[in-house]
Amino acid sequence: MPNSAVPAVLDHIDATLDAARERLFALLRIPGVSAQPNHDADCAASAMWLSNELEAIGFAVDVLPTAGHPVLLARMAGPAGAPHLLYYGHYDVQPAEPLELWTHPPFDPQLVDGPRGKRIVARGAVDDKGQAMMIVAALRAWREAHGSIPVGCTVLIEGEEEIGSLNLEPFLEQYKDRLGADVAVISDTTMWDIDTPALTTRLRGLTFLEVTLRGPSRDLHSGMYGGSALNPLNALARILGELHDDQGRIRLPGFYDGVREISPAQAAQWEGLRFDEGAYLHAIGLAAPAGEADRPALQRLWSRPTADINGLWGGYTGVGAKTVIASEASAKISFRLVPDQDPQEVAQQFRRFVTERLPKGASAAFQILAAGPGIAINEESVFMRAAAAVLEEEFSRAPVMMGCGGSIPVVESLQRILGIDSVLMGFGLDDDQPHSPNEKFELRCLHRGIRSHARLIGRLAGLG
Amino acid sequence: MPNSAVPAVLDHIDATLDAARERLFALLRIPGVSAQPNHDADCAASAMWLSNELEAIGFAVDVLPTAGHPVLLARMAGPAGAPHLLYYGHYDVQPAEPLELWTHPPFDPQLVDGPRGKRIVARGAVDDKGQAMMIVAALRAWREAHGSIPVGCTVLIEGEEEIGSLNLEPFLEQYKDRLGADVAVISDTTMWDIDTPALTTRLRGLTFLEVTLRGPSRDLHSGMYGGSALNPLNALARILGELHDDQGRIRLPGFYDGVREISPAQAAQWEGLRFDEGAYLHAIGLAAPAGEADRPALQRLWSRPTADINGLWGGYTGVGAKTVIASEASAKISFRLVPDQDPQEVAQQFRRFVTERLPKGASAAFQILAAGPGIAINEESVFMRAAAAVLEEEFSRAPVMMGCGGSIPVVESLQRILGIDSVLMGFGLDDDQPHSPNEKFELRCLHRGIRSHARLIGRLAGLG
Repeated sequence: MPNSAVPAVLDHIDATLDAARERLFALLRIPGVSAQPNHDADCAASAMWLSNELEAIGFAVDVLPTAGHPVLLARMAGPAGAPHLLYYGHYDVQPAEPLELWTHPPFDPQLVDGPRGKRIVARGAVDDKGQAMMIVAALRAWREAHGSIPVGCTVLIEGEEEIGSLNLEPFLEQYKDRLGADVAVISDTTMWDIDTPALTTRLRGLTFLEVTLRGPSRDLHSGMYGGSALNPLNALARILGELHDDQGRIRLPGFYDGVREISPAQAAQWEGLRFDEGAYLHAIGLAAPAGEADRPALQRLWSRPTADINGLWGGYTGVGAKTVIASEASAKISFRLVPDQDPQEVAQQFRRFVTERLPKGASAAFQILAAGPGIAINEESVFMRAAAAVLEEEFSRAPVMMGCGGSIPVVESLQRILGIDSVLMGFGLDDDQPHSPNEKFELRCLHRGIRSHARLIGRLAGLG
Repeated sequence: MPNSAVPAVLDHIDATLDAARERLFALLRIPGVSAQPNHDADCAASAMWLSNELEAIGFAVDVLPTAGHPVLLARMAGPAGAPHLLYYGHYDVQPAEPLELWTHPPFDPQLVDGPRGKRIVARGAVDDKGQAMMIVAALRAWREAHGSIPVGCTVLIEGEEEIGSLNLEPFLEQYKDRLGADVAVISDTTMWDIDTPALTTRLRGLTFLEVTLRGPSRDLHSGMYGGSALNPLNALARILGELHDDQGRIRLPGFYDGVREISPAQAAQWEGLRFDEGAYLHAIGLAAPAGEADRPALQRLWSRPTADINGLWGGYTGVGAKTVIASEASAKISFRLVPDQDPQEVAQQFRRFVTERLPKGASAAFQILAAGPGIAINEESVFMRAAAAVLEEEFSRAPVMMGCGGSIPVVESLQRILGIDSVLMGFGLDDDQPHSPNEKFELRCLHRGIRSHARLIGRLAGLG
């Protein structure tokens, strides 16, 4: 293919944007809500619709059963020597309820005017049908403009992302042989803002524990026993109250051993974003930030670990007074982790922290409910450099290397099971309301997303 | 009456013990469970039975309605110049369930052999029918032996003690004019052991609060917001974790200002009891005491204040992991107080303690659910000295001046509304299981209780 191949594809994308949007609308009309059993057939229909779409583009496609909803797997070899990309997305969507809060029926997609141009309003508009269809549209544009795609491609679109992807890892294990690729490319994240593209390069990990402190063998009268009997609620509050120091740092010995500072360049880029933490907190009714003192907000959210009590219970919690010393007290605690912290080691640190502080006569039982590492994506890989370059071409602005406070488990699964890194190149915006009524996707983002993916294919094929 | 009047009464009590026990059995057969509406008529029948009993002894008796169960009020003037005693008791009993754990039907009283002689087994045997009937039997014995009672007596027996005595204070207010007395005498407490009588001289008070800490205006995703958003559960644990210092002392500023040390004599008497705290705690599965370090156990239970978290809740408390930062967290906290601590002032101290520690952006709402003072009964009053003297005569052993870790609200009500102190002279034992299956009352305790009350009347009348 000539070096002018990419501009031809981009022209084709611009000329056929309406058709691409119409195809997305057809998929959005299928209410594939993975959480609701009455939509099981719609999940299967979503997979079949995508199967037809990808076959039309020239893929060999299988819709493969799992213990839950089926997974679509499409593959097309590329030219000899070309890299092979594994595209991941999901066709399932969140429940649309409460329906009465939607301005349009959630499964009757509409193109409406918004402050930044036209937007698509529908459940799944951005999460993730709209973003998955950007990729499909980019593949179609290459095929229609040039008759072929200049890289190898595997497309994996699952149907259980919104319910925890429980069957994805078994699927990856089972079909490992058919999933060979050089890199994964995923569009299920956001840009910094509508004019500023982003690559997500940091995902926090998670250690989630439950602890139960036990004291007396039965509930006691606090008058008869108060002053002599151990109170597990007092003890739990005391221990968990020591989790942070006065500066908001976490006091588990060794906790920060694996925590590295981000590079000065990264810190400077984040500083340059002028993130308005005050406005961000004001929207949730808070007047001041929590977390580590003297750390910039985006570091606290993206590159620093946390400890949060997520649940706390014990004793009498009904109406009025009951003077009881309860026999046990429990808490759920999560640690958000950054790369190079070992989630299991953090669980052990917490066990030790609690156990060392147990009053005489108390015992503690622990349950590890989740443990996954934080991830840092190497920004210097050939794929990340290519992604950054095409985003800068498309937006005339270098992409922000963003962190994500939560985790995207598939990234870790792909790394662990298939041994490949991911490029997280998303085109959503913060106000897209992906799990809420009136989910939307800006048409401009869809358009530039298709163009960016088309550019990435061209660049990885060595074309421009 | 001659100075030999008391021995004659005691002889009469000994000779007629079977009849006294049979009368108690008749009352025990009436299942006056105040908590269970299907026993409303039995509560009324209990009051009527006692009314007949007291009329037979020569009292003018009224069974007076309240918003709940009726109150029996009996009165008999004494000789001119003689003191007037107000006897308080309650005819209602705890529910008997679970019935299958009783060795005998709970409302079919039995005299059975025990390790310390005969015992009466029935619901209400000790709490409080058996103890109230000791008093009635002592009054009857005076009447039968001498034709009259040498002191003035009012007998007040309510039917809602087991459900919180909600209508007692309105009753005391309403009938204040008919309740004039020099002292109240109550038998609803325990002895130190079967050979050692006791007067209860200290009751702890109570301030019970609920606090709710509020942070973000809605529940948040702990990945997206962790490190920036205030977590009310973290904050609540941190604040409540500071309630005690390392020595188990309560850290509210001013909390100990009203707390006085007991007298060296009192401390020595309690030390002499050789209370086995290890065994006491072992019975509830605890290996070591809690509370203030370096304080003797009985002081921690009887003469020192406490702070206990009685309930704690917030966030996700179901099965598994949910990475939520909750918008609020709550706790119920009680302070057991000793005399001269002001319950309302303690509530204010707690409010200040929490408010001063609130992180920026958090708010706290407080509810005071109970506030009653601790009580110390003056051991040097003429009535207490008389009670101590008659117990020593009866048992050949000086009574222990005991504390009670909980409160007996009627004592405070009688003091506040009628302006009279109480003599708490009880004959129960620690193993009587008053609220449990197989409640019992040792026949020996019943017998000596009747004799002690008869002696007290004689002594207060100046006879012996």
